[in-house]
Amino acid sequence: MGGLSEADIIACLSSGYPARSDVKLGVGDDGAVLTPPPGRDLVSVLDTINEGVHFPAGTPAAAIAHRALAVNLSDLAAMGAEPAWASLSLSLPAADAAWLEDFAGGFRQLADACGVALVGGDTVRGPLSVAVQLIGFVDPGRCLTRASAQAGDLVVISGTPGCAAAGLRLIDSTAAAAEPLRKAFLWPTPRLALGQALPGMASAAIDISDGLLTDLGRLLVASGVGATVDLERLPLAAAAVALLNQETALALACNGGDDYELCFTLPAAAAAELPALASRGGCQLTSIGRITAGSALDCRFKGEPAAAPESGRWSHFDGEQT
Amino acid sequence: MGGLSEADIIACLSSGYPARSDVKLGVGDDGAVLTPPPGRDLVSVLDTINEGVHFPAGTPAAAIAHRALAVNLSDLAAMGAEPAWASLSLSLPAADAAWLEDFAGGFRQLADACGVALVGGDTVRGPLSVAVQLIGFVDPGRCLTRASAQAGDLVVISGTPGCAAAGLRLIDSTAAAAEPLRKAFLWPTPRLALGQALPGMASAAIDISDGLLTDLGRLLVASGVGATVDLERLPLAAAAVALLNQETALALACNGGDDYELCFTLPAAAAAELPALASRGGCQLTSIGRITAGSALDCRFKGEPAAAPESGRWSHFDGEQT
Repeated sequence: MGGLSEADIIACLSSGYPARSDVKLGVGDDGAVLTPPPGRDLVSVLDTINEGVHFPAGTPAAAIAHRALAVNLSDLAAMGAEPAWASLSLSLPAADAAWLEDFAGGFRQLADACGVALVGGDTVRGPLSVAVQLIGFVDPGRCLTRASAQAGDLVVISGTPGCAAAGLRLIDSTAAAAEPLRKAFLWPTPRLALGQALPGMASAAIDISDGLLTDLGRLLVASGVGATVDLERLPLAAAAVALLNQETALALACNGGDDYELCFTLPAAAAAELPALASRGGCQLTSIGRITAGSALDCRFKGEPAAAPESGRWSHFDGEQT
Repeated sequence: MGGLSEADIIACLSSGYPARSDVKLGVGDDGAVLTPPPGRDLVSVLDTINEGVHFPAGTPAAAIAHRALAVNLSDLAAMGAEPAWASLSLSLPAADAAWLEDFAGGFRQLADACGVALVGGDTVRGPLSVAVQLIGFVDPGRCLTRASAQAGDLVVISGTPGCAAAGLRLIDSTAAAAEPLRKAFLWPTPRLALGQALPGMASAAIDISDGLLTDLGRLLVASGVGATVDLERLPLAAAAVALLNQETALALACNGGDDYELCFTLPAAAAAELPALASRGGCQLTSIGRITAGSALDCRFKGEPAAAPESGRWSHFDGEQT
């Protein structure tokens, strides 16, 4: 299979990472030996992406690696954690040297940018699938969860949700305007700086990788509250509106997944801090509604009750409903 | 798909675990929040098993879950670590309630027996595949690695390697004598007690999940040494000899994978401790050879040079060579 042994594959995947002093033993033994930072808690996440489910066949190898790591970095961001150690389990139907180099480069580039060391994992034969496990650090009591939103809090989102889903729909488009949308799908940016700026400010947070309304709904259930969302305040990407239309762009903003933006709740008294938070997070922040005392997720359009868009929704187990 | 939502699946998989005081936040948020034990190092492992590669289609769900966890427990055992926290990423083609209950039960039973809490992970659509990540604890400086074997050390193995590979060959056999072999394949026992007894005694260790000679070879490379193995000292399961024949049983003991036994090296001065180690480890231990100053892995049969059996070898990337 391309002349690559398992040892060749491991060497290709694991070379070029900067040393971290808290990694006593990295890739190459039965396990990695790691020294946790004294007095801090760990945040552990593990997410898998599969070909044909989370990315189409033919996606560039570097983009697959980037996505597998970004999905997990986004989960750490939503917890307010600082990423540290990654493990990678790669299932491959065949070991192709060029593909593997490309994959390793994509993983390394994002890991480097986030200060993450690859410390272990495995490589096995099977349908193309990438599982990444990450460990990050948080100060005790400073971890963000989904469970502490309070009635009256603002509902805030980062970036322009729906871009990635629009990019996936336009993956074969030749329109120049589709390029930033495709980029949003292929090279999502986890909101690590924002996540680390939120503890002590936000009351609750979640990443909206499964779609804004779906993930906001999970936050509401976990917190035992409701929310009102003003649909006209959702920031839509101009390219998505131009290439798909307003209604579709809004539906994708509500229901499209794979953006890895954060949705968080902010006590109303801290509303004036939003511009400073946006600056520290390096991204646009938009207040789109309010937490309510009930349990319903109500949508409004310019003050009038409105049905939540149903299209563009995605469930890994039910398939896409368009 | 069987009426199961992702939330149903997560509830099925994550219920029934005993509380651990070091788990501040378990399954259900974007990540798990864990408090590491002060002054100890962490050992992190991540291994995936795929249907059709690591287990045949039709393997009972509980046995698949057991295997996915056992593979990783075995890696922790080889490092001398005490298992603590598991994350589970399950790729499923469809969500079947009965299958999932069976799977969850198999995972929980082994986790409970080892004091492991399930703290996170994900469930996604895709070909049947199970990735498990485990974190264990070791005292600093007490971790076992592959890299410290010394010339003159004994080469020791636990149990009777080759049983699992024999069980896989006899998976459809109706012979009563095949049952313990099938059990060795379907329900492997990670050698946790032995692993935790080895630090301070063994000079190096590895688990032999890919086959004794393959994994011993890795230990030799990591340590920069050679070894001589006396093939007639390999403990063979009587059932494997009876049902397959002596030659095949020996080849599977040398090359068959999936046993999750440990191979370790012991300074010759500690040879008298082997019975006590076997007692603490709860398993048979057999000295099968010696570490040498060279770099070759030489096999002997009753003192005469002998070729290493070639059959029964397994490589995830090259396929089985029989």
